[in-house]
Amino acid sequence: MADEPARRGSFVRRIPEGDNRLRQVCADCGYVQYENPKVVVGSVCTWEEKVLRCRRDIEPRRGFWTLPAGYLEVNETSADGAMREAWEEAYAKIAIESVLAVYNVPRISQVQIIYRARLLSPEVAPGVESQDVGLFDWSEIPWGELAFPTVRWALYHFREVADLDEYTARTNPPGELGDY
Amino acid sequence: MADEPARRGSFVRRIPEGDNRLRQVCADCGYVQYENPKVVVGSVCTWEEKVLRCRRDIEPRRGFWTLPAGYLEVNETSADGAMREAWEEAYAKIAIESVLAVYNVPRISQVQIIYRARLLSPEVAPGVESQDVGLFDWSEIPWGELAFPTVRWALYHFREVADLDEYTARTNPPGELGDY
Repeated sequence: MADEPARRGSFVRRIPEGDNRLRQVCADCGYVQYENPKVVVGSVCTWEEKVLRCRRDIEPRRGFWTLPAGYLEVNETSADGAMREAWEEAYAKIAIESVLAVYNVPRISQVQIIYRARLLSPEVAPGVESQDVGLFDWSEIPWGELAFPTVRWALYHFREVADLDEYTARTNPPGELGDY
Repeated sequence: MADEPARRGSFVRRIPEGDNRLRQVCADCGYVQYENPKVVVGSVCTWEEKVLRCRRDIEPRRGFWTLPAGYLEVNETSADGAMREAWEEAYAKIAIESVLAVYNVPRISQVQIIYRARLLSPEVAPGVESQDVGLFDWSEIPWGELAFPTVRWALYHFREVADLDEYTARTNPPGELGDY
């Protein structure tokens, strides 16, 4: 998904009537442009204990490794979004099992919903946003080449709960805000 | 938070360059208005097994009972947002315990993150968006006067896990999409 463009028409920041916060308001027509946090949906998907990873072919962090994840679209459920991203980034068909984690990156107003999922087949291939994809053992995770802190958290959290049927959804490690 | 206004300037729907979906684009200046799902954050908060409920004083569903919940703001974590909503709607101070559920209402592009939380004090009072608030036993829940299906789900799911230290986060009941 493309970043927001720099051009914003003639928006100004003011508090709309009946509100209590500054919002982007069009000085010409009065349209209120609410800025909402964005939802990222993704998954830790496995096939026989190997985890699906994708090498990013887009900025930010092009060339670094990530999990299949991306922005949730309108009218899409978060589980459907995670399945779509696995397909778009790695041609992976997955079955969602459970909510692994809810992470926050407040600096960029991002909420990440990460699922634990099973690959329905080990056949994967790079989508247009990936340089490379593959199934890797825990010992093969390139900790210094992960794209984002949330990827590291999700991998560790996945390992904590990998053998558990019931587990409480994980959140940001104490004191961490996901900046990179 | 106010609903989106009807006035949208001179936006048209087309696929921006490099994208693969229809987006709202300003016909005058080319500004792309990405429509993102909205995040609702809330909590099931208890004091000695009694659950905090709020009677809505705003539309939709004015007069019906709900849990403290509302739209996540930019640069806010989902847990902070849930604490803010408990304060704004019921002057309740709460401690977030764990992720109770992640619900989706795809028709209105809503993702709801609902926490299990503890009240730090039984002192609560109606905020400006509430007619009334109170702490109620399970037997006192007015099932026919709940504002939204997600409120009913959250109460049932809370009851399922109330005595559990570890539990898997809940999601929409099978086949339910949260419409009302």
